[in-house]
Amino acid sequence: MAVEETGQSRPKVTISAIAQEAGVSVPTVSRVVNGRSDVAPETRARVEDLLRLHGYRRRAPAARERAGLLDLVFSDLDSPWAVEIIRGVEEVAHASGMGTVVSATHGRAGATRQWLENLRDRASDGVILVTSSLEPPHQRELRRLEVPIVVVDPAGSPSLDAPTVGASNWAGGLAATEHLLGLGHRRIGLVAGPQRLLCSRARADGYRTALESAGISADDALVVRGDFYHESGFTGCQKLMDLADPPTAIFASSDQMAMGAIEALRRRGLRVPDDVSVVGFDDLPEMRWASPPLTTVRQPLAEMGKVAARTVLRLAREEELDSPRVELATELIVRASSAPPAG
Amino acid sequence: MAVEETGQSRPKVTISAIAQEAGVSVPTVSRVVNGRSDVAPETRARVEDLLRLHGYRRRAPAARERAGLLDLVFSDLDSPWAVEIIRGVEEVAHASGMGTVVSATHGRAGATRQWLENLRDRASDGVILVTSSLEPPHQRELRRLEVPIVVVDPAGSPSLDAPTVGASNWAGGLAATEHLLGLGHRRIGLVAGPQRLLCSRARADGYRTALESAGISADDALVVRGDFYHESGFTGCQKLMDLADPPTAIFASSDQMAMGAIEALRRRGLRVPDDVSVVGFDDLPEMRWASPPLTTVRQPLAEMGKVAARTVLRLAREEELDSPRVELATELIVRASSAPPAG
Repeated sequence: MAVEETGQSRPKVTISAIAQEAGVSVPTVSRVVNGRSDVAPETRARVEDLLRLHGYRRRAPAARERAGLLDLVFSDLDSPWAVEIIRGVEEVAHASGMGTVVSATHGRAGATRQWLENLRDRASDGVILVTSSLEPPHQRELRRLEVPIVVVDPAGSPSLDAPTVGASNWAGGLAATEHLLGLGHRRIGLVAGPQRLLCSRARADGYRTALESAGISADDALVVRGDFYHESGFTGCQKLMDLADPPTAIFASSDQMAMGAIEALRRRGLRVPDDVSVVGFDDLPEMRWASPPLTTVRQPLAEMGKVAARTVLRLAREEELDSPRVELATELIVRASSAPPAG
Repeated sequence: MAVEETGQSRPKVTISAIAQEAGVSVPTVSRVVNGRSDVAPETRARVEDLLRLHGYRRRAPAARERAGLLDLVFSDLDSPWAVEIIRGVEEVAHASGMGTVVSATHGRAGATRQWLENLRDRASDGVILVTSSLEPPHQRELRRLEVPIVVVDPAGSPSLDAPTVGASNWAGGLAATEHLLGLGHRRIGLVAGPQRLLCSRARADGYRTALESAGISADDALVVRGDFYHESGFTGCQKLMDLADPPTAIFASSDQMAMGAIEALRRRGLRVPDDVSVVGFDDLPEMRWASPPLTTVRQPLAEMGKVAARTVLRLAREEELDSPRVELATELIVRASSAPPAG
């Protein structure tokens, strides 16, 4: 049977009640619901009127039965924060009796197409995308499946017209910089993320606003650009420390880059935080074990996964959302890699 | 339809061919296959004979249709190596057009029971357990579902009678210790894992064998026990360095404990590797970013996931396994946390 009630406020009515009211058989109603052609036009019109009246709506062909599955899709599963998001989604899904199907597309058209086919075959109840890199043809194909979609978007670059769950990047950049200012630092370097990502720009803007609020004019020489990966934090830190007037503290806008900066400082014989303070962004679980444990801005990744799962379940139940875009608060976690400037 | 061919060597025959040969309708054959009572005894006997003859076999009731799903179950998803195993399983499953359903039981009976119910409902084609902590009643329930099971078992403590995929822990302990001996260390401390886990004992035995092979008699004072977590590496290292004759190198039998040891050394003002060398075990992805990057024994977790997925798919196809227990090779990864002893 390919019909179901569309909302909680609609009257509950069975397909056989519709059949009775229309004076036709149950299979005939089913044929109308499934869009089959072997129904007389007059009968079809009468049945369709009644279906509309009682609030029945045909679901997407692939979603004929509730599969009890949520699809959670990453570009790649080598990201260290993937497991945090999985953990959050799984917790909410599990509590609702749903399974969490984890996939990676590797940004490859073939893998994405294969995933779309599998998605259709297993008739998932919802999709959580942790990537904004779906090509337009794949986006259209996904749309055609009429499955609820939510985007978890740590990078702040949504491309699908779907509800998104993100984190407050600007406030995080502000908090990290204010923390270093509060310790007495005045020359604070920034290893920024890629310019094309909104989250990078938001973090950098938070950094600049904190400096301005403290009456410090931003020095462009103190801003270097990275790509969020370790190596770019290493080289970015080297550039900063090669300056005639190097910074006494560095805000790296990802934990990986912060770890790269710390390694560059170690190689120069500089100690963290005694000689230079370092603050990261993300709070990957491993950062509490770093030596020294890293001061960083926590992105609530597991929480973001939970909110995304709750949101997609609401969409699957055709409930209204409070907002199409949710930003969860970031939080400064002060550990041992930041201290007042030496001397 | 609740029947399928049971093996590759059996002749392919359709349910309608059985119906024709028995002189009954297709639904009648289905009723027999599904064990329903509304079939005349004589008809049932004739159909059952033909089903046997042609090698048809009824699958478990829950597994009526091929769901195209593999269930991957963890005790907890906060383990930093979970994502590595997920990555390996997902890659193989995806290539076979299968979805990977990730769950966590949190070692709780309620969550485990819920998972077992979901597993039955979604009729998964196979189960990969990354835990050996299923209680006997849950093990029996899982058995009753007649779904193929493989255990990924980094800890070396299988409890289910199922094929397992592990890693060569003993050889890893040997390689780590030989590496430190080769650098010239003679006093090598061991922060061992929990005694109850076979993997801990295997790693410790490898350590002792390496020392003996080098003609060094093991000093019990140089062996402290941890629980694989960071804190126990920290306190274990403190104990070792408090000795009158402390070690010049430490082999920690997990990366987390190695990071704890490095932090304990940093707090004492000791540098790694200049003053003390540290070698870990696991090679979590983050260890290459540690400062200094960690020398460690690599467990091929993604590979273990791949082998587990391939094994469960073979079981689902009722193919023979080469071995019920596979151990993949560990590999020493030399980075910057180990060096010849000072002085």
